[in-house]
Amino acid sequence: MSCPLCVPPEPERILWRDAQCRVIDAGEAGYPGYCRVVWGAHVREMTDLAPPERTRLLEVVCGVESALRALLEPVKINLASLGNYVPHLHWHVIARFPDDPHYPDAIWAPARRQGSARPLDREALRAALVRHLGPGI
Amino acid sequence: MSCPLCVPPEPERILWRDAQCRVIDAGEAGYPGYCRVVWGAHVREMTDLAPPERTRLLEVVCGVESALRALLEPVKINLASLGNYVPHLHWHVIARFPDDPHYPDAIWAPARRQGSARPLDREALRAALVRHLGPGI
Repeated sequence: MSCPLCVPPEPERILWRDAQCRVIDAGEAGYPGYCRVVWGAHVREMTDLAPPERTRLLEVVCGVESALRALLEPVKINLASLGNYVPHLHWHVIARFPDDPHYPDAIWAPARRQGSARPLDREALRAALVRHLGPGI
Repeated sequence: MSCPLCVPPEPERILWRDAQCRVIDAGEAGYPGYCRVVWGAHVREMTDLAPPERTRLLEVVCGVESALRALLEPVKINLASLGNYVPHLHWHVIARFPDDPHYPDAIWAPARRQGSARPLDREALRAALVRHLGPGI
């Protein structure tokens, strides 16, 4: 069985990338400010990376957090590396709002409401990522 | 309203600490290998920390991950910084097993089963944390 983060079954909405990782729009309904940061190599856990790689991945995660905060002013940012279904190291970076489908619960809890449509300008997000992370490749 | 991570309403089960943060046993039923890493100062988000502090906090989170992996050999580690209820920077570090209450879902999803009792030797965990993080204070 191939890994869907090594060989994506559908084209990903890539927002930014460098030689080591990529930032993709998660495309989750009700969550316009939801990105995933995917490490390129197929490793399972943060501690499977060398310490400088861990620091670099955190730097990218924090760059995404900064871009989302600047653009959307969310009430909270949620960060998570779970990988129970897809054990290829990736981070969820999620801008949270009081009117989103699950707030104040985690997005993996049952939904509390439909959530209001909150538009996100994807090009503005790309530009904010470049501001916080540099041009990428 | 005071912050329960600044002024804990009950004594915490502290496993390790240094001048900047502490590691506590989350005491969650069905999850013996579930720790929280709490940053001492009351800040909301990772990007409210200076970059060296972010790196240090990640180092502690990864030290806890390493200790849990060495001690329990979980099938997966879950890491998360959410804070929707308690917006004081803290990380969940959770050892996951196929027979735990929520696997393969996130622990915030509805439970799938009661989960089997998996004993954890708290003193062995303390010793593993010291091995991976140093003596602390």
